[in-house]
Amino acid sequence: MTRIAIIGAGPSGMAQLRAFQSAKAKGQSVPEIVCFEKQNDWGGLWNYTWRTGMDQNGEPVHGSMYRYLWSNGPKEALEFADYTFDEHFKKPIASYPPRAVLWDYIKGRADKAGVKHQVRFNSAVKNVEFDQQDRMFTVTVDDHQKNETYAEQFDYVIVASGHFSTPRVPEYEGFNIFNGRILHAHDFRDAVEFKNKTILIVGSSYSAEDVGSQCYKYGAKQIYSCYRSQPMGYKWPKNWTEKKQLLHVDENSAYFADGTSAKVDAIILCTGYLHHFPYMAEDLRLETHNCLYPDGLYQGVVWQKNPQLFYLGMQDQWYTFNMFDAQAWYVRDIVMGKIALPQQDEMTSHTAQWIKREQSLKNSEQMVKFQGEYVKQLIAQTDYPSFNIDAVNEVFMQWKKHKKENIMGFRDKVYRSVMTGKMSKQHHTPWLYALDDSIESYLENENHEQEAM
Amino acid sequence: MTRIAIIGAGPSGMAQLRAFQSAKAKGQSVPEIVCFEKQNDWGGLWNYTWRTGMDQNGEPVHGSMYRYLWSNGPKEALEFADYTFDEHFKKPIASYPPRAVLWDYIKGRADKAGVKHQVRFNSAVKNVEFDQQDRMFTVTVDDHQKNETYAEQFDYVIVASGHFSTPRVPEYEGFNIFNGRILHAHDFRDAVEFKNKTILIVGSSYSAEDVGSQCYKYGAKQIYSCYRSQPMGYKWPKNWTEKKQLLHVDENSAYFADGTSAKVDAIILCTGYLHHFPYMAEDLRLETHNCLYPDGLYQGVVWQKNPQLFYLGMQDQWYTFNMFDAQAWYVRDIVMGKIALPQQDEMTSHTAQWIKREQSLKNSEQMVKFQGEYVKQLIAQTDYPSFNIDAVNEVFMQWKKHKKENIMGFRDKVYRSVMTGKMSKQHHTPWLYALDDSIESYLENENHEQEAM
Ligand SMILES: Cc1cc2nc3c(=O)[nH]c(=O)nc-3n(C[C@H](O)[C@H](O)[C@H](O)COP(=O)(O)OP(=O)(O)OC[C@H]3O[C@@H](n4cnc5c(N)ncnc54)[C@H](O)[C@@H]3O)c2cc1C
Ligand SMILES: Cc1cc2nc3c(=O)[nH]c(=O)nc-3n(C[C@H](O)[C@H](O)[C@H](O)COP(=O)(O)OP(=O)(O)OC[C@H]3O[C@@H](n4cnc5c(N)ncnc54)[C@H](O)[C@@H]3O)c2cc1C
Repeated sequence: MTRIAIIGAGPSGMAQLRAFQSAKAKGQSVPEIVCFEKQNDWGGLWNYTWRTGMDQNGEPVHGSMYRYLWSNGPKEALEFADYTFDEHFKKPIASYPPRAVLWDYIKGRADKAGVKHQVRFNSAVKNVEFDQQDRMFTVTVDDHQKNETYAEQFDYVIVASGHFSTPRVPEYEGFNIFNGRILHAHDFRDAVEFKNKTILIVGSSYSAEDVGSQCYKYGAKQIYSCYRSQPMGYKWPKNWTEKKQLLHVDENSAYFADGTSAKVDAIILCTGYLHHFPYMAEDLRLETHNCLYPDGLYQGVVWQKNPQLFYLGMQDQWYTFNMFDAQAWYVRDIVMGKIALPQQDEMTSHTAQWIKREQSLKNSEQMVKFQGEYVKQLIAQTDYPSFNIDAVNEVFMQWKKHKKENIMGFRDKVYRSVMTGKMSKQHHTPWLYALDDSIESYLENENHEQEAM
Repeated sequence: MTRIAIIGAGPSGMAQLRAFQSAKAKGQSVPEIVCFEKQNDWGGLWNYTWRTGMDQNGEPVHGSMYRYLWSNGPKEALEFADYTFDEHFKKPIASYPPRAVLWDYIKGRADKAGVKHQVRFNSAVKNVEFDQQDRMFTVTVDDHQKNETYAEQFDYVIVASGHFSTPRVPEYEGFNIFNGRILHAHDFRDAVEFKNKTILIVGSSYSAEDVGSQCYKYGAKQIYSCYRSQPMGYKWPKNWTEKKQLLHVDENSAYFADGTSAKVDAIILCTGYLHHFPYMAEDLRLETHNCLYPDGLYQGVVWQKNPQLFYLGMQDQWYTFNMFDAQAWYVRDIVMGKIALPQQDEMTSHTAQWIKREQSLKNSEQMVKFQGEYVKQLIAQTDYPSFNIDAVNEVFMQWKKHKKENIMGFRDKVYRSVMTGKMSKQHHTPWLYALDDSIESYLENENHEQEAM
């Protein structure tokens, strides 16, 4: 029997499990699936951990999320086409749910599909090799529960281990003498640690914006953020100043390219992540950066050099959960022989065209539409429920606009579900004053929590 | 030609390089040696890094040392028998040097030996396997400079990758809601971060004692430490309180087994380290804990199941640098055929006897002497310069006594070198007031630095 290994049970891996299960539910015979997950629960980044650095098994901590994290995009942009928020929560909820609420949603679909038995938890993949002779993969796994290492053979491998977990950590002169904490956003956990502190955020990414916003919300005294090329340019609160590039630091101050300096208590590096697959044999290892169309992956997922190997979710992400679905359904249909792949050179030139198009994109609107178009084309090839991608693009545009208007208030906006046509419901408390991010607090109907800072 | 792989260029790996070079200097023909070191410099833990978590190559950060770390034992107990402190520094220095000074000393001997060309830096060993057929090891390495993975074959493998780098991180109830920083000692870098803070130190190890002492020295407001079985029992300063076992925490307080609780700003887990060799094939992997005589290692170094494999420095460490030397010289002589190993069962029963003896040890004096005896017996088998182990044991006893007398002052004591017979020189500034731990400040002769807190 054909055997498939899925590496990782985050949203991408779970989408893959659901994709196969949905074919099975339609009476089709599906391959044997083993999903290896190094953590003790599924949900990937959405499965919060207080741990940083190395975990209890000596594995790098996967989690990069933090307490008080609320979705940074509208839930209407990531909704599953086959399992709506209304189906899961049985009532309308607001558009920017906190982490625990989205985790619950992801798990809800997977639980309904009944696929958890296919996941081997506490199982870290250590090595993946391909044998040209028998055309099989050997996957070596550390089982941290049994404290055993073993290897198994598979016909297909689907990598779904994410790419926002291995921090890119630059060094600036003086870091070795700076007296405060220096951390990467990957290790950021609780903004309250920085209450009444002056912090320096290095970078101008989503992380920079959101980590800084958390710190503002939970009482940081002063926030500096600094950029290499472009300022984020939002209307920041009075105690948030954008600076030009960081040049160096000393025991307690940071020095910037505009000649100014500032005393800071802590430095948070929001400097991005590495696509990092140390467990893949070198000839199977994707080498890319955070872009919309990684080279070497036909249709964004098929490892061109060997189409028995797939990578899910490796793109920079405007679209998330439903893009992972589109990819997972597509991969499933290749494995199940419903979609035939073209010749190598055709795949290569197809990818090259997309990459060329990506390089010509000029602004975020074009980028969103580019990724929307990619998702649209994938969905057209499978039985994943189609939905109005143009409408989702429009939600993204609204979101952008709302952020420009009020960076500390955009999460109070509501949007219409593309899947159900229904408007989402205003949350009982404005984001800036909603200090409790628990699912219980979030799902309460009454306006009980309004509290000033 | 016989090929040897050494994994790690810390004090143990450097001792191994020096051991072979010293045979070569005596005209003996030595095997080809490759030492793989994942960092970009040698010295192991003594090579300080501000980094925590994952490094620039996506490797776990090895460093567990911190700024302001001064030797926690007298240098007279760890002195190399073939390269004294006097030879290196050309003048007497005090007994408890800061990290940079000891790093300089270690590097001094290795530089003199001219062995650096045998080290491949930025080279992380990923996998070690043994082929029963051709009786060779295959060592797979990630070269992070060239961004390449390659494999090479070796007749012998010597593991010298240390065992104080993979933190043992227990979870206590409430850690997921605690509002401050929770870190393991492995990630502790700069005590100034905790100035004017109340900290909780979990554990009663050397780390607990020393991390707490640093925080005291650099101005922590209040220190709590808590223990499972025994308090450390030193005469702590007024603002340091030992508590019984930690039971749980909430947003901002810690609750102890004696029914008391305390508000704390940060929690530092001094809960030890795992012996962790994820890169070793399971049948070659040492599984042990921090003890004086790890099971499975004949003479504390020979992997009994396959004597082409060795582990250096895997013991709990009273003795350090000169014990690593004793081990390295012994391993060298096995590899070079000067020492013949007994049969398997003889090795097994030899080890079993030592382990039985270890189990009967009742106090630290007996433990020191046990390890001294082990070192003595190793040295007797090679041409490593013999030295008076009983006198070193006596230095340890003095050190213990001085700590009991004054835990914040023991580093001001001086001892006599067993190697040279000379007394060490009082440092220009008492440890508690010596805030600058640089090698320049340390090696200055004048009493310039006396500054009150
Ligand atoms: C701070 C942060 C905030 C974000 N906020 C949002 C948001 O608001 N909305 C949104 O839509 N997206 C957000 N994202 C994007 C996020 O990438 C996706 O939502 C989603 O988690 C990606 O899913 P994934 O399954 O591809 O990867 P992951 O979620 O990273 O899951 C990968 C899984 O693979 C496992 N794994 C890794 N290595 C191994 C191994 N060797 N062996 C076995 N298992 C392994 C991991 O344990 C993990 O469970 C955010 C990302 C970050 C970092
Ligand atoms: C906080 C702390 C304080 C200490 N203080 C003292 C003290 O005051 N006095 C004292 O004598 N001892 C002290 N020690 C004990 C310390 O263990 C020894 O001094 C010494 O560093 C051990 O040397 P080692 O070479 O065995 O291991 P390490 O110093 O740990 O060196 C191991 C080397 O192996 C490399 N490595 C690891 N994995 C790989 C891989 N996969 N591939 C390639 N290279 C790899 C590492 O990068 C490192 O360079 C302290 C230890 C700690 C943690």
